[in-house]
Amino acid sequence: MSNVSLEDIVSLCKRRGFIYQGSEIYGGLAGTWDYGPLGVALKRNITREWWKFFVEDRDDMYGIDAAILMNQNVWKASGHVGGFHDPLVEDLKTKKRYRADHLLEENGVSPVGMTLEQMDFAIREHKLKSPEGNGLGEVRQFNMMFKTHVGATADEASVSYLRPETAQGMFVNFRNVVDSFYPDVPFGMGQIGKAFRNEIAPRDFVFRVRELEQMEIEYFVHPEQWQEKFEYWLGQQKQFLLSLGLPEEKIHQVEIPAEDRAHYSKRSVDTEFDFPFGQKELTGLAYRTDYDLMRHQEASGKSMEYRPKDGSAPFVPHCVEPTFGLDRLILAVISTSYIVDELNGEKRTVLKLPARLAPVKCAVSPLLKNKPELVAKAREVYRMLKNPTADMPGPQMLYQGAVVWDDNGNVGKRYRRQDEIGTPQCITIDFQTLEDDTVTIRDRDTAKQTRVSIDNLKRMSGFIAWEK
Amino acid sequence: MSNVSLEDIVSLCKRRGFIYQGSEIYGGLAGTWDYGPLGVALKRNITREWWKFFVEDRDDMYGIDAAILMNQNVWKASGHVGGFHDPLVEDLKTKKRYRADHLLEENGVSPVGMTLEQMDFAIREHKLKSPEGNGLGEVRQFNMMFKTHVGATADEASVSYLRPETAQGMFVNFRNVVDSFYPDVPFGMGQIGKAFRNEIAPRDFVFRVRELEQMEIEYFVHPEQWQEKFEYWLGQQKQFLLSLGLPEEKIHQVEIPAEDRAHYSKRSVDTEFDFPFGQKELTGLAYRTDYDLMRHQEASGKSMEYRPKDGSAPFVPHCVEPTFGLDRLILAVISTSYIVDELNGEKRTVLKLPARLAPVKCAVSPLLKNKPELVAKAREVYRMLKNPTADMPGPQMLYQGAVVWDDNGNVGKRYRRQDEIGTPQCITIDFQTLEDDTVTIRDRDTAKQTRVSIDNLKRMSGFIAWEK
Repeated sequence: MSNVSLEDIVSLCKRRGFIYQGSEIYGGLAGTWDYGPLGVALKRNITREWWKFFVEDRDDMYGIDAAILMNQNVWKASGHVGGFHDPLVEDLKTKKRYRADHLLEENGVSPVGMTLEQMDFAIREHKLKSPEGNGLGEVRQFNMMFKTHVGATADEASVSYLRPETAQGMFVNFRNVVDSFYPDVPFGMGQIGKAFRNEIAPRDFVFRVRELEQMEIEYFVHPEQWQEKFEYWLGQQKQFLLSLGLPEEKIHQVEIPAEDRAHYSKRSVDTEFDFPFGQKELTGLAYRTDYDLMRHQEASGKSMEYRPKDGSAPFVPHCVEPTFGLDRLILAVISTSYIVDELNGEKRTVLKLPARLAPVKCAVSPLLKNKPELVAKAREVYRMLKNPTADMPGPQMLYQGAVVWDDNGNVGKRYRRQDEIGTPQCITIDFQTLEDDTVTIRDRDTAKQTRVSIDNLKRMSGFIAWEK
Repeated sequence: MSNVSLEDIVSLCKRRGFIYQGSEIYGGLAGTWDYGPLGVALKRNITREWWKFFVEDRDDMYGIDAAILMNQNVWKASGHVGGFHDPLVEDLKTKKRYRADHLLEENGVSPVGMTLEQMDFAIREHKLKSPEGNGLGEVRQFNMMFKTHVGATADEASVSYLRPETAQGMFVNFRNVVDSFYPDVPFGMGQIGKAFRNEIAPRDFVFRVRELEQMEIEYFVHPEQWQEKFEYWLGQQKQFLLSLGLPEEKIHQVEIPAEDRAHYSKRSVDTEFDFPFGQKELTGLAYRTDYDLMRHQEASGKSMEYRPKDGSAPFVPHCVEPTFGLDRLILAVISTSYIVDELNGEKRTVLKLPARLAPVKCAVSPLLKNKPELVAKAREVYRMLKNPTADMPGPQMLYQGAVVWDDNGNVGKRYRRQDEIGTPQCITIDFQTLEDDTVTIRDRDTAKQTRVSIDNLKRMSGFIAWEK
């Protein structure tokens, strides 16, 4: 367990421009969050790493970016219209609705594997009340997909849903990718995109939300291969999490019992993480069998058979699905990096983000903002790093705009602010700079300052140290 | 006008894995499209260029990534609930609905500036029929926002909309960004994200769609600055389009007359482009005045005043909005690059994409796939380029996974296939490679082949030529 509180994280995220409440000026819209300037940068850095690790660097992966709105028949076939439900129970007085399974859990009753009737029985048996202390109605199923209508008329035929998972955008394109690229099985499809779930009780900041971003892979295998590939992807998932700097001791792989698995899954292993609010799901791995392709084959009448090039028997591939919640991953990265330590006897908050992920790589400041000669020199250094020319391959690769100008307050205040947003290095231009063209580089983690010549700044060697 | 037909482009996009029809196996969902592996790569390359040009490389821009679902009060205040309408008219027999303005236009009557009543009158006057030849009902307003319900009850209070523009996600965060970053005015916010419009007649491939991706900027200025900044952004928009290789003669800036402007705009200039189906809007520039911030200030009760640091009078900033339709831009890039030329007396189709944008930078092939020694050597070269090590800064920057292995068919067929997807260079490993460690590099545009040593491939110089 991390000893930083969720409140501290939410507060830092808002104050410093990582994540704001969605529609905040109107009192918000529960379960929606807006990424601010630093949050967007962090998100872009994480998705870039993911795409490189799981798609670009591999020989067997095909990227997809499918529409959020899909033909309603997709969700009938996939089982989501019939089965993507949460059990709800109503406060008889206030008419507010609650998750029945959460109510049970909070009252010390495990709802694992319970049917609706069993939950109902357990609520009566334990004489549970609503959080407001009122009686509760019957437990009912509630479909979690957001419904809308596409076209000029609002009837059954025009119903569409906001996708509750990006996965189906890949299954329905299975045929297309095979026809365009002739891949050998095993191969996979990868996608990063929004998904929507009408959660009754969104909570824990960006952890349980109504609008989320997923990074998903559907990996198609011969039915005999699934176990081997399942183990393989479990390893890949962990390796990726470690590559983002998440500590191994906070990562837990948990086998999901049959009664708790999604309707399409024959085996599921969640990778849970020690968040400030407890050990919770961060990534999932499911063996979806040939469930989805078979359902789409039946419902659409289009063959999902794969014909191996070596002439062996055609088959409908089975599917292993590693999936990542991007917002949760961002929260895991921030909560891991959030450190309160002591510096010269004073407490400081520092975000020890891996340099690769830091939204700002480097802040450039004049020692004093009322000395025009210092400001001019500092602007020169800033400009050089912010918009490097072609003969500076180092900064060009590492920065890409991630250099900021900071002349607010005194140097001490600047360091504190940059520490809070995780800037690995701060460059200060002082009076000595004017004499010998050297600057100080101050390291976020050690707070040590080093003098470096501006010429050296231009070279990659000066910055490669960030890639730790 | 380009002389390539839209049908040719749609066909290439599907065949080669750029863009597929959304939910295709179920007969599609009109106005939705799925990006396939090459389309995703092209899209990522274009958005990366945009983000760098308009956000990362600048000092005055703040990135945002706001939620698609927003509090309904946002859309009441912005005027979209009351005013984001299309005029619809119903076929009295089939009950199908059509855009009244489009019907008029197709029948040679300009609907520009017409009220609903005037459209109605014009339809009667010209005795217009529906496309099926039936009588038409009255012209009615139809709100183009997709509606849904958030939470457990489906009543008025739970109504939400899929955002029809990303812009409001920035306006509602104006205060937040000012509080977190203390920017000086003028400054801007930039966002890339999905927007949704319930178009009655989606058409022209990814041009007029129901689910689109926008790249938008809200640039906040002092009211006295707006004209100067409007001209500036008009220039920036054009410069960006030129940087993507769009030819200047196909780009037209068109002043939009008052009666055709959006409800919030006091001046609008569209940048139109010669698409295969005619000269149509590609980007927009609008002077939104202080309309949005004032409406949100009134509706939310939160002050949108900006206080200059120099102590001068506070004011609510005005806003200049440059906006880009990402899907349209992709279509413009593809249709510009799509060339049919002649090579050795044979016709060939080639996508002359700027190398920077090409989804695949380089294909590696063995001359013959049944010669193990050629295949082994080719795999070695492929691996070297696909997963370069740290001592190969050149390829690492330029490729990033954009190297493919291609051993399908003979060399001629491979070149044709790579030409069709716009791969700038093909590397072939032949028998001479085994003797002297040289390979051939074949150029997409000239079809010329050059022999280069594998050692040279490792160095940046061998590939810098792509950056033309």
